[in-house]
Amino acid sequence: MPISLDRLDRVLNPSAVAVVGDKRASGYMWLNSLKTFEGNLYSVQVDPREVKGIEALGVPNFASLTEIPEPIDYVVCAVPRKIAPIIVRDCIAAGVGGVTLFTSGFAETGEDEGVALQEEIGALAREGDLALIGPNCMGLHNPRLGVRFHRDQPHGQTGDVGFISQSGTHGMHFSLVGATRGVVCSALISFGNGIVLEAADYLDYMAADAGTRIIAMYIEGARDGRRFVRSLRAAAARKPVVIWKGGQTRAGSTAARSHTAALATDQAVWEAIVRQAGALSVESLDEMIDVVHALQRTKPGRGRRVALMAMTGGQSVALADAFARAGWEVPRFAESTYAQLGEFFNVIGGSYQNPLDMAGTIMTDRAALDRLLDLMADDPNVDAVAMEVSATFAAQRWERDPEELAALIRSLQRFRERSDKPFVTALHPSYVEAAALKARDALQEAGLPVFPSFERAANALGKSAALRPSLNPGGAG
Amino acid sequence: MPISLDRLDRVLNPSAVAVVGDKRASGYMWLNSLKTFEGNLYSVQVDPREVKGIEALGVPNFASLTEIPEPIDYVVCAVPRKIAPIIVRDCIAAGVGGVTLFTSGFAETGEDEGVALQEEIGALAREGDLALIGPNCMGLHNPRLGVRFHRDQPHGQTGDVGFISQSGTHGMHFSLVGATRGVVCSALISFGNGIVLEAADYLDYMAADAGTRIIAMYIEGARDGRRFVRSLRAAAARKPVVIWKGGQTRAGSTAARSHTAALATDQAVWEAIVRQAGALSVESLDEMIDVVHALQRTKPGRGRRVALMAMTGGQSVALADAFARAGWEVPRFAESTYAQLGEFFNVIGGSYQNPLDMAGTIMTDRAALDRLLDLMADDPNVDAVAMEVSATFAAQRWERDPEELAALIRSLQRFRERSDKPFVTALHPSYVEAAALKARDALQEAGLPVFPSFERAANALGKSAALRPSLNPGGAG
Repeated sequence: MPISLDRLDRVLNPSAVAVVGDKRASGYMWLNSLKTFEGNLYSVQVDPREVKGIEALGVPNFASLTEIPEPIDYVVCAVPRKIAPIIVRDCIAAGVGGVTLFTSGFAETGEDEGVALQEEIGALAREGDLALIGPNCMGLHNPRLGVRFHRDQPHGQTGDVGFISQSGTHGMHFSLVGATRGVVCSALISFGNGIVLEAADYLDYMAADAGTRIIAMYIEGARDGRRFVRSLRAAAARKPVVIWKGGQTRAGSTAARSHTAALATDQAVWEAIVRQAGALSVESLDEMIDVVHALQRTKPGRGRRVALMAMTGGQSVALADAFARAGWEVPRFAESTYAQLGEFFNVIGGSYQNPLDMAGTIMTDRAALDRLLDLMADDPNVDAVAMEVSATFAAQRWERDPEELAALIRSLQRFRERSDKPFVTALHPSYVEAAALKARDALQEAGLPVFPSFERAANALGKSAALRPSLNPGGAG
Repeated sequence: MPISLDRLDRVLNPSAVAVVGDKRASGYMWLNSLKTFEGNLYSVQVDPREVKGIEALGVPNFASLTEIPEPIDYVVCAVPRKIAPIIVRDCIAAGVGGVTLFTSGFAETGEDEGVALQEEIGALAREGDLALIGPNCMGLHNPRLGVRFHRDQPHGQTGDVGFISQSGTHGMHFSLVGATRGVVCSALISFGNGIVLEAADYLDYMAADAGTRIIAMYIEGARDGRRFVRSLRAAAARKPVVIWKGGQTRAGSTAARSHTAALATDQAVWEAIVRQAGALSVESLDEMIDVVHALQRTKPGRGRRVALMAMTGGQSVALADAFARAGWEVPRFAESTYAQLGEFFNVIGGSYQNPLDMAGTIMTDRAALDRLLDLMADDPNVDAVAMEVSATFAAQRWERDPEELAALIRSLQRFRERSDKPFVTALHPSYVEAAALKARDALQEAGLPVFPSFERAANALGKSAALRPSLNPGGAG
C-alpha cells in the first residue's frame, strides 16, 4: 500500500517533532536547526553523556519514542546504520507519521551489509505504513513552521516553491543560496535513496499542495521510471516544474551511482521525457534558482523581442551579445520611439539604437529614466525589457546616498506597475562586491528580479517564459 | 609614418602627465584618478571657476600645454569635441609624447560633424607624429607608476597582463574586477575608435614589452584586418593571447557599430583567424579574467584526465558533470591508489571513486587531506586536480577560527610545491557571501587559483591549457 498524501501532509506540517540520536560531536545539529520549530520538540537519546547536553538546550529527552507523552508527527533519526531498524520499529509502534533517516551507509556504499539493512528498513516501513524519508538524506524543511535541517535556513516566513531533492547538499543550497535571491520554499524534501517514498510521491504531493506555486527538483534517478513520468506530466500540467538532473554526463552518472545508488538514464531520453512532460531542464543549482527567481518576479510574456538598456557603449555590446546568444531578438524600436528619443537623448557618449546606451542621459536623472521606460512600455516592437544596473558606476554612491537607489527602485516599480512586459535587471557584482550585494538585496526586497550577469538574466528570462502556460493564474506577478 | 613603439613606450611610462579640461562636474575624475601618479602631474584649464578647484587639489594649473615648464609625456584631453583639434595642435607644438582623447562624439555617432572632426584630428596627429589614443576612450593605466583612469584602479604594484581594450568600460572592469581575482596589469590601454593607433599597434607593443607575460584584449573590429592578423599571429607566437570580441552576434555587432563605429566581421571567419593565430577566443569579461587567472596560477599540463575532490555526494555529481561538460575525462584512479584510499577513507557518508566525496574524511583533518593530495600527485591516471572548497560548510567556521583556513591553505601550497599537475579550487560564494569572499581573498593571496563555480573552474583550466605552449618559460608557476 503506498503512503497517502494525507500522511505526507501530516509529516510536512507537524505539531510535534522528535530527534533520535543527536549528539555533541555534531554540535547537536538537528536540535539546533529545529529550535525555530513552532510546535513541541523532543529528543530521544540513551547515552547519559549526551543527555546532559541535550537537556542544557532545554529540549525534553526520553529513552524511547514510545515514552513521549504525545503523538509525534515527524521524527529525525540520526543513529548508526545498525540501530536504524530498531528506530523504524519504534516509530511504527509509537504511531509516528513519518521519519527522516539521516543515517547513511546503505545501498549507496555498494556493500552487502548496507544493501541488506536498506531492504530491511524499507520492508518494515511499508508494512507499518510509515512515511520513511531517505535513508541518506536531510529530510524536511518547512520555513513557515520553522522545520529545518540547517541552522541558517529561513524560518518564520512562507515561500511558494516546493523543492524536491535527491541530494541533501543541493536541498540545503537551494534553501540557503535561494534565500539570498529571495527564493523561499513552501516545503523542501531531501529524500536521498528514496526507498519507500520517492520522487514521484513528492511530485504528487507538491502538485496537490495549495501553498506550492512552483515546483523545483534535483534528481539523480527514479526507481520506477513510468510512474515518475506520469507524476511529472501531471504536476507540469498544473504548475511550472524545473528539473536539474545530476549525472547528465557519464562521469556525473558514475558519481550519482556512488551517491544515491541511482541508475544511469540516457541523457537524450531524459531530455525528451522532460520536454514532453512540459517541464524544464536546467544544468546547475544557479540556473535552477535563476529560473525560479524569474518565474516569481517577472510577468508572463510571449514574444522574443527584447529592449536592452545599458550604462555604457561597451556594456551595450556585451548585453546585446548575451541576449542574442540566448535566443532573443534585439529589434529596432518603432519610428515613433526614435522620434521621441531624439528629443532628449544625449547622443554624445550615448546611443539610442537598441541597446540604449544610457550613460550620457540617465546616470542620476530619474525623470529621463522614467521617460525611457515609458517609451519601452509603449513600443509595439518590444516584448520584454532588460536593464543593466551598474555596481561599478553606482554602488558606492548608493552607499553614501541611499535615496538615489531608492529613487531608482521607485522608477523600476513604477514601470512594472504600468507595463505588462516582462522586465529583468542585471547587476554584476563588479569590484564593489559588498556594496553590490546590498544593492541587489534592496532591489529584491522591492520585488524586482535581479541577476548577477547579463548571460544569466537572458537565460532565465527565456527559460522561464517556456514554463508560463502552466503557471497558476492569480499568483504573484 | 606609423607611431614607433619607443614613442608608445614613453607615453605608457611617463615622467610628466597633464590633464586638459578636467572639471568639478565630473568630480575632477582625471586629476583624482591620477593623484597616485609617481611623476609630475599638471592641469590645463582656462575656466577661472574650475581653476580654483584644481588648485585646491594641489595640482599646478596652466592656461596652455605649451606653458608647462617641462616636457610632457602623456596628456589626457577631456574637452568638448569642437575644442579637441586645438588641443591636438597644442600637444604637437609642446612636443607631447601622446594624448588620450577621452572626448567622444566622433564617428561613433554616425553624424557628419562627428565624422569630419575625427578625420581632422587623425590627420593632425599623424602629421605631427603624436601618439593619439582614442578618441572616445579612457586611455592608459600603468599600476606600477600609478597612472589610472579610475580612482579605484590598483597602484603601487606591478602585474604581468597587458590589456588592450576598444571599450573604456571593459578596460575599467578588467582592472577593477580583475584586481578582486588577483589579476593586475603591466599596462592597460583603452583605445576607443583607434584612429591613429589601433589594436595591431598595441599588440605589437605588448608582444615586445618585457613586463607583459600574458596579453588580453577586447576588440570590436580592426581597421586594417590583414595587419591585425599579422600582429596577432606574431604576438601569440611569443605570449598567450586571450581575445574577447564584442559583437559576435548580429545584435551585438549592431551595438558595436554605435559604440566604436566598428564594422561587422563574420563570426566563423573571426573564430578561424583567432584559432589559426594560436590565440584563444572568449565570450565575456568573466571568462577572460578566469582564463588569465588560470594562466597565472596553475602549472602547465598536457593531459585531460582530472581528479575531482568534492565535499559531499551531491557536489561530487555536480563537479563531475561540470568537468565532463567542459571536455574533461574523469578517470578511475590507479589500483594502488584505491588500495591506499581503502586504508583510511570513511566510506559511510563518503565515497572514493573519482570524484572523491570527502565529507566523512577531511572536513577538518588536514593530515587526511595531505594524504589524499599526495595520492592524487602520485596517481599515473591523473593529469590535473580540481577541488571544491565549500563556503557553506566552512566559511563561517573560518571567520571564527582563521587558523583552520590557514592550515587548509598550507596543505594546498604543500601540494602545489610537490606536484607538477595543474591544480584549481572552486569556491562558490554560497549564502555566506561576505565570508566566502574573504576566504577567496586569503586563498588568492597565497597564490592559489580560485573560481566561483565548478563550471568556471572547468572551463578556465581547459582553455588556459590550450595556450600553454606559448607561455614564456620562467614565469610565475
